[in-house]
Amino acid sequence: MKKIEHIGIAVKNMEISNKLFSSLFGEEPYKTEVVESEGVTTSFFQVGPNKIELLQGTSEESTISKFIDKKGEGIHHIAFEVENIHKEIKRLKKEGFTMINESPKKGADNKLIAFLHPKSSNGVLIELCQEIEK
Amino acid sequence: MKKIEHIGIAVKNMEISNKLFSSLFGEEPYKTEVVESEGVTTSFFQVGPNKIELLQGTSEESTISKFIDKKGEGIHHIAFEVENIHKEIKRLKKEGFTMINESPKKGADNKLIAFLHPKSSNGVLIELCQEIEK
Repeated sequence: MKKIEHIGIAVKNMEISNKLFSSLFGEEPYKTEVVESEGVTTSFFQVGPNKIELLQGTSEESTISKFIDKKGEGIHHIAFEVENIHKEIKRLKKEGFTMINESPKKGADNKLIAFLHPKSSNGVLIELCQEIEK
Repeated sequence: MKKIEHIGIAVKNMEISNKLFSSLFGEEPYKTEVVESEGVTTSFFQVGPNKIELLQGTSEESTISKFIDKKGEGIHHIAFEVENIHKEIKRLKKEGFTMINESPKKGADNKLIAFLHPKSSNGVLIELCQEIEK
């Protein structure tokens, strides 16, 4: 794994949280993006080599809205950048980790992504991601 | 803020979690350290420019043990590396953030650290840290 690509933070109100994190970093988000397939609106901040991704559910049925109902606002997942997501999924399955996505899918920010099940990784929801070559 | 210095993950059993995260990263922790003042045993993994810090309470009274009792194992905090921790605390207070530590204190891994209160930062426990010059 190459680095922490981003940390995903579940928020209730993107407008309020964008202001809050802009004050925290002294910088505005560099982009916002709706990912229909995931039912989320996202907002990205750059912090050196890493990113912070704010996530708000687009409906009450979205995973993020359900997460907030259960646990409140806060850190939702860590995403690690990998060189080859297919190889990494194969390696992790062999190591005994349970994948939520056995095949990578298209995520926000031009990435192929796959989640590991938090039950097999100490309660931490881990995302693997690889930049899609243009 | 320069980068995500590390993510702190609360674990119940350091031996089991060290094995788990070694499998995840394909690499052993590069150091372990007991921080008496915080009541924690820590273990560090390097992932490119970032680190993962596993945290286990040294007693049932430690903050980490109480966190696990309440929320279960999982992500405990995000630490951002800053250039000048005193200036950053001053700036964030002016922006309206509530500091848990108004003055920096000595943390693990040769760092000066200060925590922000999660109530003022979207439920996320944020640590500022600055390397102590030798």
